[in-house]
Amino acid sequence: MSESAQKKEESGKYNRIIAAATKTFAEKGFFKSTVSDVARAAEVAEGTIYLYFKNKDDLLISIFESSMDMFIREMDQALEGITDVKERLRRLITLHLSLVEAHRELAQVLHIELRQSSMFMREYTGDKLKQYLKFIQDIIEAGQAEGVFNSNADPYVLRRTIFGALDEVGLKWVLSKRKGPLEQFSKQIADLFLNGLTQLKEK
Amino acid sequence: MSESAQKKEESGKYNRIIAAATKTFAEKGFFKSTVSDVARAAEVAEGTIYLYFKNKDDLLISIFESSMDMFIREMDQALEGITDVKERLRRLITLHLSLVEAHRELAQVLHIELRQSSMFMREYTGDKLKQYLKFIQDIIEAGQAEGVFNSNADPYVLRRTIFGALDEVGLKWVLSKRKGPLEQFSKQIADLFLNGLTQLKEK
Repeated sequence: MSESAQKKEESGKYNRIIAAATKTFAEKGFFKSTVSDVARAAEVAEGTIYLYFKNKDDLLISIFESSMDMFIREMDQALEGITDVKERLRRLITLHLSLVEAHRELAQVLHIELRQSSMFMREYTGDKLKQYLKFIQDIIEAGQAEGVFNSNADPYVLRRTIFGALDEVGLKWVLSKRKGPLEQFSKQIADLFLNGLTQLKEK
Repeated sequence: MSESAQKKEESGKYNRIIAAATKTFAEKGFFKSTVSDVARAAEVAEGTIYLYFKNKDDLLISIFESSMDMFIREMDQALEGITDVKERLRRLITLHLSLVEAHRELAQVLHIELRQSSMFMREYTGDKLKQYLKFIQDIIEAGQAEGVFNSNADPYVLRRTIFGALDEVGLKWVLSKRKGPLEQFSKQIADLFLNGLTQLKEK
């Protein structure tokens, strides 16, 4: 096998294990799942998993990291060529919730299982999360530089505020039994933040 | 002992156990803590804890419930006599973050340890959380009824949006090594939401 073909197969196997772990953790819960459950779902030997991942926590954190990569990639594509900062922020908010809706099992793992990992909550340095937060921050800073968004607020606080709101609305949706479309919320949340940002002064 | 004196002593013991459990979980983490650790910290016999709480998860959920009671009580007091809905929402946001700041150990348990409980994330029906969310919702609905806040958005979505933002900013603060004052963020977040709510229309 050529080196590139081998790399491709390896990356295919890596992604297959990530997908299988997502499904397994979403269905059984992180604590009740074992590495051998994941191996079975991925149709690989248990030892193969340890070629790519240190342990079950590492699998969980890798799901998180690959999903943040996917979020950033999708956002990059969706915002390509869009220069209006208000439209950029609106699309980011809409796409964030669309991705939650389109990937229910992943959303379940990110919103519920991930927070049950003590390693994730206490030790993870969160570089991938920071990348995504930076993506939000860049839009806010561009808007402030252009004078479209009010400059009174710290973009660092705003990125957390917006992320927190999207995260909570996503969590609530994941936990709800009857899952209506998230799209209807996107517009309301985007309107709220865009109005807040474009008129940000003391009331 | 009279019945009321006995009730008072029991409630004192209940509160002492809750305070000890908060401290223990914040210091050792929920998983590594045992009921006997909590008993030691509360200076009661382990059996006494089981008079009030079913198990360790029940202790954790009771911390959450008593803290939501405290939040609602404090909010009620702080907002008493304030009729201006914008000022009510501003004070709610400020007080939420002040309470996080004033109760670091509790904030650690609520933001980090609580989410590691599978029972809390999956099975807890969340009546106390709903009470607090309802408190936020009531302010929004009053503002909409008065025509001060735009009525385009669903108060149900808005309460989650505001709660999620405060929760995320609180979590970030709990996790940060150098904890600057949260007060500076309160004003920015309040301005953002108040501007968003008072001007809520499509941009």
